[in-house]
Amino acid sequence: MSFRLSDFVAKLGGELVGDDLAIRQVAALETARADELGFLANPKYRKQLADSAVGAVVLAPEASELTDKPRIVVKNPYLYFAKVSALLNPPVRPDNGVHPSAIVAPDASLADDVSIGPYVTIGAGARIGSGTVIEAGCRIGAGVEIGEGGWLYPNVVIYHGCQLGQRVTIHSGVVIGADGFGNAWDGEAWFKIPQIGRVLIGNDVEIGASTTVDRGALGDTVLEDGVRLDNQIQIAHNVHIGKHTAMAGCVGVAGSTHIGAYCTFGGSAMILGHLEIVDRVNVMAGTLVGKSVLKPGTYVGQYPVQSHEDWLANASHLRRLDAMAQRLKELERRIGRQDADQGA
Amino acid sequence: MSFRLSDFVAKLGGELVGDDLAIRQVAALETARADELGFLANPKYRKQLADSAVGAVVLAPEASELTDKPRIVVKNPYLYFAKVSALLNPPVRPDNGVHPSAIVAPDASLADDVSIGPYVTIGAGARIGSGTVIEAGCRIGAGVEIGEGGWLYPNVVIYHGCQLGQRVTIHSGVVIGADGFGNAWDGEAWFKIPQIGRVLIGNDVEIGASTTVDRGALGDTVLEDGVRLDNQIQIAHNVHIGKHTAMAGCVGVAGSTHIGAYCTFGGSAMILGHLEIVDRVNVMAGTLVGKSVLKPGTYVGQYPVQSHEDWLANASHLRRLDAMAQRLKELERRIGRQDADQGA
Amino acid sequence: MSFRLSDFVAKLGGELVGDDLAIRQVAALETARADELGFLANPKYRKQLADSAVGAVVLAPEASELTDKPRIVVKNPYLYFAKVSALLNPPVRPDNGVHPSAIVAPDASLADDVSIGPYVTIGAGARIGSGTVIEAGCRIGAGVEIGEGGWLYPNVVIYHGCQLGQRVTIHSGVVIGADGFGNAWDGEAWFKIPQIGRVLIGNDVEIGASTTVDRGALGDTVLEDGVRLDNQIQIAHNVHIGKHTAMAGCVGVAGSTHIGAYCTFGGSAMILGHLEIVDRVNVMAGTLVGKSVLKPGTYVGQYPVQSHEDWLANASHLRRLDAMAQRLKELERRIGRQDADQGA
Repeated sequence: MSFRLSDFVAKLGGELVGDDLAIRQVAALETARADELGFLANPKYRKQLADSAVGAVVLAPEASELTDKPRIVVKNPYLYFAKVSALLNPPVRPDNGVHPSAIVAPDASLADDVSIGPYVTIGAGARIGSGTVIEAGCRIGAGVEIGEGGWLYPNVVIYHGCQLGQRVTIHSGVVIGADGFGNAWDGEAWFKIPQIGRVLIGNDVEIGASTTVDRGALGDTVLEDGVRLDNQIQIAHNVHIGKHTAMAGCVGVAGSTHIGAYCTFGGSAMILGHLEIVDRVNVMAGTLVGKSVLKPGTYVGQYPVQSHEDWLANASHLRRLDAMAQRLKELERRIGRQDADQGA
Repeated sequence: MSFRLSDFVAKLGGELVGDDLAIRQVAALETARADELGFLANPKYRKQLADSAVGAVVLAPEASELTDKPRIVVKNPYLYFAKVSALLNPPVRPDNGVHPSAIVAPDASLADDVSIGPYVTIGAGARIGSGTVIEAGCRIGAGVEIGEGGWLYPNVVIYHGCQLGQRVTIHSGVVIGADGFGNAWDGEAWFKIPQIGRVLIGNDVEIGASTTVDRGALGDTVLEDGVRLDNQIQIAHNVHIGKHTAMAGCVGVAGSTHIGAYCTFGGSAMILGHLEIVDRVNVMAGTLVGKSVLKPGTYVGQYPVQSHEDWLANASHLRRLDAMAQRLKELERRIGRQDADQGA
Repeated sequence: MSFRLSDFVAKLGGELVGDDLAIRQVAALETARADELGFLANPKYRKQLADSAVGAVVLAPEASELTDKPRIVVKNPYLYFAKVSALLNPPVRPDNGVHPSAIVAPDASLADDVSIGPYVTIGAGARIGSGTVIEAGCRIGAGVEIGEGGWLYPNVVIYHGCQLGQRVTIHSGVVIGADGFGNAWDGEAWFKIPQIGRVLIGNDVEIGASTTVDRGALGDTVLEDGVRLDNQIQIAHNVHIGKHTAMAGCVGVAGSTHIGAYCTFGGSAMILGHLEIVDRVNVMAGTLVGKSVLKPGTYVGQYPVQSHEDWLANASHLRRLDAMAQRLKELERRIGRQDADQGA
């Protein structure tokens, strides 16, 4: 597959400056070759561009004159580059059909043009929409509904009754709809609380490898349209995540927390249970959110890294901060009295 | 399935006040309908109860007069509600039998009334107890023993030689008995230390999706009776967890740590290796435990979240806390001297 | 299988002192029996050794006289003990052959002496090297290359095009080569950036259960020779990990970070994206690394654990550290002025 720069402009817009090169692939500037297209995210990388063997480049109007290579000038070079890459790298879809080793319940309903891989199991009453791919070893529980254009990579598990919208992509090792963690103490042992809710996933959601989303205890756990979850994330029962919210790897969200739309969470952030996070909140990596966040903005709680020696010297004072604050107050009182004594 | 309130009282105790309603399901107050049973955990939610269409409610004696709906009055409404839910929502067990696609070693020993799903593999000498369910794609290693009434959801892996007690529930993606992380540095590279111990799991244990419990290096890794582990937890080799201890999602426990009974761990807590945590210790979410905890109680080490601007202003001082403490001490010395000079 | 102490010395070196005992197994001192070999890592455990029923022991020259049991004296007892354990506990390899239920693409290339388990799927053009074991339920994508002497435990997934070197061990639930987390905001929704790189894994690498290593966005994600990853780790796209670096459980590394050789990372450490960590850096458990580390050494950022009461008193001041620092400065100014006034 090969495109000319003018093909991209015809499909995606932007202004072509220079020769209408044939482009075979997208690439990073450091490794790009003469038939590849790179992009300049920031004028500060101009040196990398100057040193690059890249054939052509996507860049912003203010950077257009930093090179005399063939280039496409657009307002958002990163997004444009992503769209070019999508044109050059369409997903390689397995053939339609149901592999003879797949075990599909007699009353499950599969669209004509699905692709069901080897050793898949599909439970009673499940419904799989048009164009959906379910790769080897996936387990689809009874009554599960998966919309059109979905893609489940190998060894995904969807427990009974969960629903996925259109164009939902789920990577290997993901578990959707396992029981939430609900236990009542009976005086001697934990009594398990049945988890009778479901997981409801909207359209255009992508979920990264080995992430887990638990079913609701009573109501449902909900991921709205456009949510993006990276790998190794834990979403507990009855969490609600608003549309287009994105979470980086290893985030944990405890039960019944309601997260708004257009939020972002850095890696390993941890959100406690029964909180409300409004729309357009950004939580930075490693931050534990222990109370509701009712105002949009960026929030952090990272302990700064230091050399071991410096940390030993400094961190021990954290256990005595209150005493330090009392001593400071006392000093202010004494020096205030001295000033008064001296008529200062 | 439908019960009357008096059926619950007959089975579970409590006092019925008002009409003996037929109840179809349990529900949260916000969404409950007239044939559903809710519960009031705390009198402060009385407004929600007043606004609810719920048919009947479980509540504590001191809250009994907050409503005139039919109600069951009990000391622990949450536990009672869980038990009602368990009556109304018995697990839907797959049929007994061994699916023809399951591969069972000739010398493995299966009780008559097990349910072994498609594409399961069961290794040499394994023993599966009465009533146990093993769903599709599970891998049971050689010599594994699983007691009565167990339930393994799809795609669980149990390595060779591990033992599970009675009524153990394990959710999808869990890996029990993989090698612990043992490496000795030989001057040029890591030399792998064989992990020859096992994982021993007691009775009435539940383990959440994608949790991993490593086999011991020499001795065994042990989870005692009644332990409850949520999702995405990592239990390293030779850890010992006492009975009825519960851990929320994403907790990590490093090697050879001994944790007592009746402990609780909040999400993402991290416990370092070779420590001792006594019985009845509660570790809050996100807390790193770096030394042994020899006294029962609640322990925390959470860095508070702030707006990004506030964090930038405050967190930098953490790198200079020791200097601040020295300056404070010096000020106290100087002001003490001044007071002395003035005969104060 | 049984060895005498002199067999170990013949193969592995060291000096035998005392009787040439027959040894059946290695064991911890606490549980060891008369036909087992223990080791003394540190003279401070001499009491344990004195109380032990162990038959013989490996120890360092300076500890040789702490016991009169038969013993092997070597400079590095821990490494020696590991090597003895490897002799006594060779892995139990499944038989060679391709299980009839394995589905292998016609153009995949398998060495003669591989062991391919039940229900494995191997994609088009994949190549599996001599002696490699692939256990039940593994998914090997198209074009994947796995070198000689590899071992994939059950239910591992390797996406298309990834490469593993010689003697690579991968535990259950691991996912190699899933899409990295790349999304460009288009003003209304996230646009997925195709992830067209691969994962390249060197020789003698071991990866623990449920760890995920994402494929590169443009270039490749790389684990060099001898890397050791524990369980539940997340390695994002385009990360590069230098040779013999080891990471404990639950570590996360964000995209495009370059980590040097001979580094170690404690459990739950989190490394942000686009950073450089040089060779021989040790990051302690629970530490968030938010900037590049350009000097070898040990780095920490752990918030100390306290009792709940103490934490409540102390942690609140973290939100006012900057104000405390200003007040301290002001006090220094005032007391300086007073000293000046008094001609001190």
